[in-house]
Amino acid sequence: MNATMSMLSMVEAKLPPGFRFHPRDDELVCDYLAAKAAGGSTESSSMMMVDVDLNKCDPWDLPAAACVGGNEWYLFSLRDLKYATGQRTNRATMSGYWKATGKDKPVTRKGLLVGMRKTLVFYQGRAPKGKKTKWVMHEFRMEGSDGAPKLPF
Amino acid sequence: MNATMSMLSMVEAKLPPGFRFHPRDDELVCDYLAAKAAGGSTESSSMMMVDVDLNKCDPWDLPAAACVGGNEWYLFSLRDLKYATGQRTNRATMSGYWKATGKDKPVTRKGLLVGMRKTLVFYQGRAPKGKKTKWVMHEFRMEGSDGAPKLPF
Repeated sequence: MNATMSMLSMVEAKLPPGFRFHPRDDELVCDYLAAKAAGGSTESSSMMMVDVDLNKCDPWDLPAAACVGGNEWYLFSLRDLKYATGQRTNRATMSGYWKATGKDKPVTRKGLLVGMRKTLVFYQGRAPKGKKTKWVMHEFRMEGSDGAPKLPF
Repeated sequence: MNATMSMLSMVEAKLPPGFRFHPRDDELVCDYLAAKAAGGSTESSSMMMVDVDLNKCDPWDLPAAACVGGNEWYLFSLRDLKYATGQRTNRATMSGYWKATGKDKPVTRKGLLVGMRKTLVFYQGRAPKGKKTKWVMHEFRMEGSDGAPKLPF
């Protein structure tokens, strides 16, 4: 786990009082996730957010790994597939698992669909007997209007 | 009315995507209002927010005067007394008046009372026949635990 201060936190610490990282959903998808996915490791925007392996981190480990904001943390995580032959995402950790709740929400920029936001709740223990906790995560993915990842910006 | 871009807006425009002015109540009181009240016109924090005469500006004039944030604006305004001999604040504008709603909310820092937040709604026309609008303002004032303005920071 990367316990160094993220660049976001360092930028925030140097700003006048009251300035903080408060991204809109479309900024997370277009300015951070898309830049990262495009492999722009030299892009300042993709250098700002830390990489975390969500299958190796329990939620209470995240504040130290991705320390941004009072009670909110932003991070990149590579999707781990549950089965080598399928498309289901492995969302298990050491102590429990993340489970989707509600419906995915479309993320738009200038009227165009650019991504989707999935809301997940952390359950402690093993499915289906896990115990619901107060940890909530929003997972953003890129998505074009035709269902395929697309970058219309 | 000062129609130039505030320094806050200029700072925001130069930051990476997602950074914006999202001050907590105690930051507005301690880091902005108190610095301003102390006459620190050379303080960067007090230079950041524009001065507006709220009795000369109707709410729809404010976005141009204090352009910060999508639908939120931050500004300083000198209190105008309703009567020379009393303590009531004159909150009338050309087209209407601001009227308090609900109870004032204490603003604390590190457990100490540093100020109060009053919520006001704009009514078009003359009291008591004004028509309620959707414009809302939060008015912050400095206040110590003993009721007198105090700077415990």
